[in-house]
Amino acid sequence: MTYNYASRMANLNGTATREIFKLLGNPEIISFAGGNPAIECLPTARVKEIAADITSAPDFARVLQYGLTAGFPELREQLTSYVKSVGIDDAKLENVLVISGGQQGIDLVLKTFIDPGDVILVENPTYLAFLQIANSYEAVCHGVDANSDGLDLNDLEAKIKKYSPKILYTVPTFSNPTGKTYSAANRKAIAELTAKYGVIVIEDDPYSKLRFKGEYVPSMKSMDKAGNVIFISSFSKILSPGNRTGVAMAAPELIRKMEICKQGTDLHTPNLSQMITYEYLKRGYLEPDLEKAVVIYGEKKAAMSKAIAEYMPEEFECTDPDGGLFIWGKFPKGIDVIKTFPEAIERKVAYIQGSVFFAEPEGTENYIRLNYSYANAGQIEEGIKRLGELFKEKLSSI
Amino acid sequence: MTYNYASRMANLNGTATREIFKLLGNPEIISFAGGNPAIECLPTARVKEIAADITSAPDFARVLQYGLTAGFPELREQLTSYVKSVGIDDAKLENVLVISGGQQGIDLVLKTFIDPGDVILVENPTYLAFLQIANSYEAVCHGVDANSDGLDLNDLEAKIKKYSPKILYTVPTFSNPTGKTYSAANRKAIAELTAKYGVIVIEDDPYSKLRFKGEYVPSMKSMDKAGNVIFISSFSKILSPGNRTGVAMAAPELIRKMEICKQGTDLHTPNLSQMITYEYLKRGYLEPDLEKAVVIYGEKKAAMSKAIAEYMPEEFECTDPDGGLFIWGKFPKGIDVIKTFPEAIERKVAYIQGSVFFAEPEGTENYIRLNYSYANAGQIEEGIKRLGELFKEKLSSI
Repeated sequence: MTYNYASRMANLNGTATREIFKLLGNPEIISFAGGNPAIECLPTARVKEIAADITSAPDFARVLQYGLTAGFPELREQLTSYVKSVGIDDAKLENVLVISGGQQGIDLVLKTFIDPGDVILVENPTYLAFLQIANSYEAVCHGVDANSDGLDLNDLEAKIKKYSPKILYTVPTFSNPTGKTYSAANRKAIAELTAKYGVIVIEDDPYSKLRFKGEYVPSMKSMDKAGNVIFISSFSKILSPGNRTGVAMAAPELIRKMEICKQGTDLHTPNLSQMITYEYLKRGYLEPDLEKAVVIYGEKKAAMSKAIAEYMPEEFECTDPDGGLFIWGKFPKGIDVIKTFPEAIERKVAYIQGSVFFAEPEGTENYIRLNYSYANAGQIEEGIKRLGELFKEKLSSI
Repeated sequence: MTYNYASRMANLNGTATREIFKLLGNPEIISFAGGNPAIECLPTARVKEIAADITSAPDFARVLQYGLTAGFPELREQLTSYVKSVGIDDAKLENVLVISGGQQGIDLVLKTFIDPGDVILVENPTYLAFLQIANSYEAVCHGVDANSDGLDLNDLEAKIKKYSPKILYTVPTFSNPTGKTYSAANRKAIAELTAKYGVIVIEDDPYSKLRFKGEYVPSMKSMDKAGNVIFISSFSKILSPGNRTGVAMAAPELIRKMEICKQGTDLHTPNLSQMITYEYLKRGYLEPDLEKAVVIYGEKKAAMSKAIAEYMPEEFECTDPDGGLFIWGKFPKGIDVIKTFPEAIERKVAYIQGSVFFAEPEGTENYIRLNYSYANAGQIEEGIKRLGELFKEKLSSI
């Protein structure tokens, strides 16, 4: 039988990271490809303790029964406190939706707002899975230029005027893929500009807690006076990616729409996942675990920067992030990291081609994203050494 | 700020059951409204044991880390065996996708196939959440008549010819809402007819294990020669609704498309939920738990049938299911159960209006769905007594 798929399927292929993820069953390959937290940072003992307590509680049957789509009220209450740590002081229960990971939050916003052909502005470059989700809604994405301060405000306003976008998607703190952070002034200006033109902003924040250097910057949502910013955060990079929990925080009307959209996708986030996140926050485990994690990530990032300085071709330029999980690099024109990928795999090292992070990928084959959170220090040095050798060979033959 | 939503939002309101679910925080209300399994059937001790074992295993960190979108390979393997119990003997790993509850399976099929305006055929009446999900894809649903044998095959073929539908949605065993079951001959004829016209069939099977009477009927998927049937089952009604796990089983090409669609919605089903389901199946807990559950559900159904005979107006007609969770009833014309609902809530008893289960709801205000799995025997008698009094009053004033 020949299947007659929906038109959205024409542009939907597995995302590069997810497909590479499948390759990485081979433990010999040193992977800088994913966005996995360090395995040694995952709080196995704490989750064991919490799971034992939850399953021993007299009302455990409640956890096995159906739950509310918006999430357990006690978790939502807890999340109104959690968002205070990013400067959002006035969140109430009706501002908060429990989501099955940050990815679902993005999906629900697009489901709420996007018709085929609607325009979304994204940073140049941006989170690749966002582009994939936008494809699934048949949105048209255009890139906005960035500078050291954040988004280029002139380019942003010009593109808002030109394209009348419905949504601006941002990762303002430790961006995926660049690791860069927007300044407070830049955030305020973005919030004001988008409010003026009636553009919804998705502030995607999986990484801001993972700061090992520099100063805290308040969330864009905390500067939102018009109600056009939707804040999305995830517990995937701290507590557990496999637990699939996150939070969306927005105006009550928007949360209600997203809740209705969530009814049709997964009814509700699994209760045990929710209760684990609730207890983890309530017991105050997040802060001490974060303190340890940022030391580890800072060391890993330093190890990668050092290895890059030592082994990569001197023409290679890259970012120096204060937090998050990624270094973003650029080779001279003539290097094509997409074509080089199979050779890297032969040498047992993996990365992600930078081109997949661009809404308009033409001419971006010389960019690369390197993840430093997953590999250990020895693997980081060895992997970068292998990449350095590979790309020095390539450069010498341009 | 005024929000400019996607056009799909115009027809999306919370489903009736989900919204009523919120009302039922009041424990004084006897609820026949939801589709919750009996709280006494939820295997709390088993899940406690399994969770303790999973969280104590040396490789527990793997459960906290990211997983594959298609699901844990060992769970998928287990599910290829599980579907043998519904007559599907040849399932391989590539035929199986782990889903976050049956609802997500439906959502992924529609995401794969449906463009706005595409037609879906459904049974008259059908699962209300399906209609809601279809709305979210801006599909047009038309009802197919049913008879005691299953779907009316003449009406089905006539409507396939008239509407060129992409999908036929069915709940062939213990249908929600009617509790009826299609015969084996009817299933075979549906599989052949839809294959002939290239129509995809969703065979939604959350209930077939909950048989307390009558003979097992093999799944429609087991009769599928063309590869047009997608089988969806859920562990929500047996193991736990709150755990949100299920299985989709179809041709490898379709499973791959659904997997790509799942990437963008929730990346993967939470690992702990998957592992709990895996261990529950592997340890052989399903069969003995089912044996006990069907006795309980059979008794509850009998209690409701008895109470209906005793207390409901004699003009009330209803089904007599061999399994599942629901009795479907019909009052004489002139009774409007939608208008009567607030009075029922005043008398502390809840039901679902039958009209929400119809693709074309005009003139169906006299239908009602009654769930017998959640309330206990005393509540069933008392609740039906209250409803009987209420509707006798209404009937006397027609």
